[in-house]
Amino acid sequence: MVRRAQGKPTIADVAALAGVSVAAVSKVVNGKGSISAPTRERVLTAASKLQWTPSAAAVALRSAKTRAIGMVARRSPDLLSADPHFTLLISGIESELSPLGYGLLLHIVGEEPSAEEAAYRRLADERRVDGVVLTESLIGDTRFDLLRTLGMNTVLIGTPWRDDPVPAVQATGLDSGIRSAVEHLVAHGHQRVAYVSGPEDRVHTRYRRRVFEEALAAHDLTPSHTIVSDFTAAGAVDAVGRLLADRRRPTAVLFANDSMAVAGMSAARRLGVDVPGDLSVIGHDDLPLGELVYPQLTTVRQDLVGLGRAAARVLLASLGEIEDATVDIRPPELVVRESTGPLTSREPVHPT
Amino acid sequence: MVRRAQGKPTIADVAALAGVSVAAVSKVVNGKGSISAPTRERVLTAASKLQWTPSAAAVALRSAKTRAIGMVARRSPDLLSADPHFTLLISGIESELSPLGYGLLLHIVGEEPSAEEAAYRRLADERRVDGVVLTESLIGDTRFDLLRTLGMNTVLIGTPWRDDPVPAVQATGLDSGIRSAVEHLVAHGHQRVAYVSGPEDRVHTRYRRRVFEEALAAHDLTPSHTIVSDFTAAGAVDAVGRLLADRRRPTAVLFANDSMAVAGMSAARRLGVDVPGDLSVIGHDDLPLGELVYPQLTTVRQDLVGLGRAAARVLLASLGEIEDATVDIRPPELVVRESTGPLTSREPVHPT
Repeated sequence: MVRRAQGKPTIADVAALAGVSVAAVSKVVNGKGSISAPTRERVLTAASKLQWTPSAAAVALRSAKTRAIGMVARRSPDLLSADPHFTLLISGIESELSPLGYGLLLHIVGEEPSAEEAAYRRLADERRVDGVVLTESLIGDTRFDLLRTLGMNTVLIGTPWRDDPVPAVQATGLDSGIRSAVEHLVAHGHQRVAYVSGPEDRVHTRYRRRVFEEALAAHDLTPSHTIVSDFTAAGAVDAVGRLLADRRRPTAVLFANDSMAVAGMSAARRLGVDVPGDLSVIGHDDLPLGELVYPQLTTVRQDLVGLGRAAARVLLASLGEIEDATVDIRPPELVVRESTGPLTSREPVHPT
Repeated sequence: MVRRAQGKPTIADVAALAGVSVAAVSKVVNGKGSISAPTRERVLTAASKLQWTPSAAAVALRSAKTRAIGMVARRSPDLLSADPHFTLLISGIESELSPLGYGLLLHIVGEEPSAEEAAYRRLADERRVDGVVLTESLIGDTRFDLLRTLGMNTVLIGTPWRDDPVPAVQATGLDSGIRSAVEHLVAHGHQRVAYVSGPEDRVHTRYRRRVFEEALAAHDLTPSHTIVSDFTAAGAVDAVGRLLADRRRPTAVLFANDSMAVAGMSAARRLGVDVPGDLSVIGHDDLPLGELVYPQLTTVRQDLVGLGRAAARVLLASLGEIEDATVDIRPPELVVRESTGPLTSREPVHPT
C-alpha cells in the first residue's frame, strides 16, 4: 500500500510511491550522486502523480544552498567585448552578492537559444546555483517555462513578454530617455530622424521603437527610416551606408546601442559626413566607450549597475537572505555630448 | 585516549582528536552546512596539532570536486567595461571549461590588493572552486604564496615575477608585437616616439617598456617621452595634453592598452591635431573598440582568447580532467589600420 499523507505531498510520499529511499529522491532532484535511469524515471513518475512539484522540491532543499547565482550570456566573445553592457550588469550583481558570500557563476554560450537552455538545464541538474539572472527578454520567451520546470529561482532584467509572471526588474519612466532624445533632436531643427534598432526578437527592441515613433508623432513627424540591425559594428556600418545613400537622407540617427552608434558615426565620417554638422548621432546605454571617442557620443543612459543590483536583491530576498529587495534604479536619461547639434553644413538633400 | 594512526594523519584522526564526527570535520573544511564556532575551532586546532594540512585536505576531498574554476577581477566596473580584455580572457576560459561541465565563478572586487586576497580566502574557505586563474602579474606578487598556503590549484596568465614557480601561460615571441610597432613607426620616418604605459606595479608594464626602448635603441633612438599612466581615459587625455604641450612634441605615441589609445587619439584631435597626419597612435590588445572608431586604431594584437583557453587547460590537466594542456597561443603581432602613417602636416615642432 502506498502511504499518502493528507494535504501537501512530502518527499517521503514520493519515495514511498516510487519504492525508493528518500535519499534516492533527493539525489534525483539534486542531480548529485549516481542514480540509475529506471529509478530516476520511477521517482519522476511518482512526483508527477502526487503533484509534488519541483518548486516544492526547491523548498525541501532550501537547507542545501549552493550560495551561487548563475548568469548565462548568449553572445559571441567579440560582441560581448564590443558591447560590454553585461560587464556593468555583472558588477551590479556582484556588489550585492559579495557581502553575503554569494558567488556569480558565469556562462558565455553561443548565439543559439538551445545553448542557453542547455546551460540552464546543466545548472539545475548539477545543482550549481540557487537562482539565475536573465537578460534580454525575448518575444515569446520560452526560458521562463523551462526554469519553472527546473524549479529554479529566476529574475529577469527587463520587461517580460506579455503577462509572464516572472519576477522582473526595470527602471520606472522607461520611455523617458528615448523621448528626451527625440525632443533634443526636434529642438535642434531635425525633421528627418532615422532609427537603427537591434534584433526584432527582443521585447525592448519593439518597445523602444514604439516610444521613438510616438515621440516623433507628438511633433507630427514619422521616422525617416527604420533599419533592423544586429548590435554589431558591421551592421551599423551597413545601415549608415544605406541611410546616407538615400537622396532623402536623415539628418539624425538613433542607434539601439553605443557600439553601433560609434561604428555608425565613424562610418559617416569616413564618407566625409560631418558629425554633428551633417548628421547627429545618438546611442543607447552610456557605456564608457562613448566618452573615449571624438566627437563624444550623445546617448541614452541606462542604470545598468542599478539593474544588476536590483536583480541580485530580488533573488537574495526570495532565498530568504534579505528582507527588502528594494533598490533605486535611476530612470533612463539623455546625456548630451558632442555628437548631436543643429545642422551647420550646406543642406545635402535634394527633396523631390 | 586519542587514536593516532602511524604515518600521514587522516580525517578520522582529526575527528577523533577533536572529539567530533568525520562529517563535522568535512563540514569545517568544506565550509558547507552549519557548524558552531567552538566546534570549528576544535577541528582546526586538531588539524593543526596533527599537521593535517589544507593541502592534504584538498587531496582527501578530491573526490568532492566542485567542478568550478574561480577568477577574480581587480578593477572598477567602469574600467572593466572601458577595457574589456577580461571579457575575452573569460570567453577563452569558458570555451574550455564548458564542454567538461565546469563553471566559471567570477568575482569583481575593488582595486585594493586586500580585496583580491579576501576573495581567494573565501573561495578556499568555502571550497567554492577547484582552481583559480590569475591575471596581471605584479611586481613582488604575494598572491601565489597565499594560494599555495590555501592549497589552491593556480595558473597565471602572464609572466611570473622573478622565479616564482607558479604555472603560467603566455605567448612565445612576446616581444614581437611591440618591436613591429617600433619598426613600423621608424619606417614611416618617426624619430620622436613617446610611450604611455600602465601602472608600474605590473610585470608586463616594465617588460614592454624595456622592449620598446630596445627596439628604438636598435635605430640609435631613445623614447622622446615616457609617461606612467593608469589605463584610464582620463589618464590618457592628461598624458596627451602634456605630450602635445611640449615644444619637442612626439610625432608618434604607443599606449599600453586600446582604451587609452582611443581616448588619447580623441584628445589629440580635439586639440586640432590630425591623426595620423600630425601624430601616429598605436594601442595594445586589439579589442573590438579599435575597429569601431575613426580613424581605426593600429594596435598590437594579443591572443586573449587563446591565453584564456591555455590557462583553463593547465588547470583541467592538473585536476586530471585532460591529459594534454597544450593550446596554440598566437604571438603578439602588429595590426596596421588608419591611426599610423607618415607625417603629412606642416612640421609643428620648433627644435631649439
